[in-house]
Amino acid sequence: MTKTKIPAVSALVFDVFGTVVDWRSSIIRELEAFGRERRLKADWTALADAWRAGYQPSMDRVRKGEIGWTVLDELHRQTLEALLPKFGVSGLSEAEIRHLVHAWHRLDPWPDAVAGLARLKRRYIVGTLSNGNVALLLNMAKRAGLPWDMIFSAELARRYKPAPETYRSVPDLLRVEPGQVMLVAAHNNDLVAARRESLRTGFVARPTEYGPRQTRDLKAEHEFDVVARDFIELAELMGT
Amino acid sequence: MTKTKIPAVSALVFDVFGTVVDWRSSIIRELEAFGRERRLKADWTALADAWRAGYQPSMDRVRKGEIGWTVLDELHRQTLEALLPKFGVSGLSEAEIRHLVHAWHRLDPWPDAVAGLARLKRRYIVGTLSNGNVALLLNMAKRAGLPWDMIFSAELARRYKPAPETYRSVPDLLRVEPGQVMLVAAHNNDLVAARRESLRTGFVARPTEYGPRQTRDLKAEHEFDVVARDFIELAELMGT
Repeated sequence: MTKTKIPAVSALVFDVFGTVVDWRSSIIRELEAFGRERRLKADWTALADAWRAGYQPSMDRVRKGEIGWTVLDELHRQTLEALLPKFGVSGLSEAEIRHLVHAWHRLDPWPDAVAGLARLKRRYIVGTLSNGNVALLLNMAKRAGLPWDMIFSAELARRYKPAPETYRSVPDLLRVEPGQVMLVAAHNNDLVAARRESLRTGFVARPTEYGPRQTRDLKAEHEFDVVARDFIELAELMGT
Repeated sequence: MTKTKIPAVSALVFDVFGTVVDWRSSIIRELEAFGRERRLKADWTALADAWRAGYQPSMDRVRKGEIGWTVLDELHRQTLEALLPKFGVSGLSEAEIRHLVHAWHRLDPWPDAVAGLARLKRRYIVGTLSNGNVALLLNMAKRAGLPWDMIFSAELARRYKPAPETYRSVPDLLRVEPGQVMLVAAHNNDLVAARRESLRTGFVARPTEYGPRQTRDLKAEHEFDVVARDFIELAELMGT
């Protein structure tokens, strides 16, 4: 809670996985439900964590040019297909694989997210700025009631965060100065990369994103423009 | 009114100028207000029509490669700056020019538009698919209360309609078949071009878009999937 208002900002864009939605509880819920319906046994919590652990490495293959531009839905599928045999799950149909991959479209927001965004939306453009692809983010928004004005995505820049182009794509498309855009994230490194491109920064801690034993991103570790407990406090600090 | 429901459609995207908003009345209103405030006299209605008459020619320069990719805000400015002396208006400041160019961000919706879109939004993804740039469409939406889920724009494909790439960009980003996307427009040629890329088509006549003596696009001139009087009837025909 460092400042009470930042008048120059016209748009707030949000990291999504972890910042807006509780991906871990949601993916565990989806995998457990799938297991019950199909009468399959596996350590679904461990599979959820392993799936997410493959997230950065899968994007690194794109970042390093080992593979061409590939949307997150496809990376999620590749990671899952490599993991399933290790967890003793085999023989899934194409429709079943697709259902699981689309679990990432069905993530639940943190309890404060929708209400906070609705308040911020009255005064600011509110959008995503996520490595999730547009279809994933749109389907998630429709299901969860996230009131985005715009879906900004790594897919539009064809570069995964923390590539500078991805952050710059937002002020470029909005035709405003970078300092008129604030990135809100629960991850210090995302905000540091955004600040390097002259975006404003807002930190909201999500101390159970990675489960009860989370050790990183428990607090803001740098000078950010705004630090808030949740999206309700963020809305207050931003004057809405 | 040809069909009562098209179950396969998951997204409706809308042409904006003329289809969703009444650009002509809005631009005349903006120019007249500007003239009153600045105590300038000119034929503001004729200027509005001339400005819009420069719309397709200005995009043609981009389409033919005479100039590189240029967003509509910039084309609007170039057209206006060429017209102002012919209408006896001179000596405007940069801020005044900018205010006038941004009149295209302040267009009013047709009376049925917001209510029809709100109904359609319950079941479908609703988005723009306009030659307007993202900032223009977002600012317009915030002011007018247009409840878009997504701003699709020629700017994202960097090609102006009726380029095939612009139509195809929507199913590509949504990761659905082209037949799951419907373009809604008040212009026969826009819909014919969309149909060529296998999109579904919805026609809504706007018989006063070009003023009381409009002669074109008074009715659907081709076989479109849906023909509706306005967005309320469109919402009904689409089962919402």
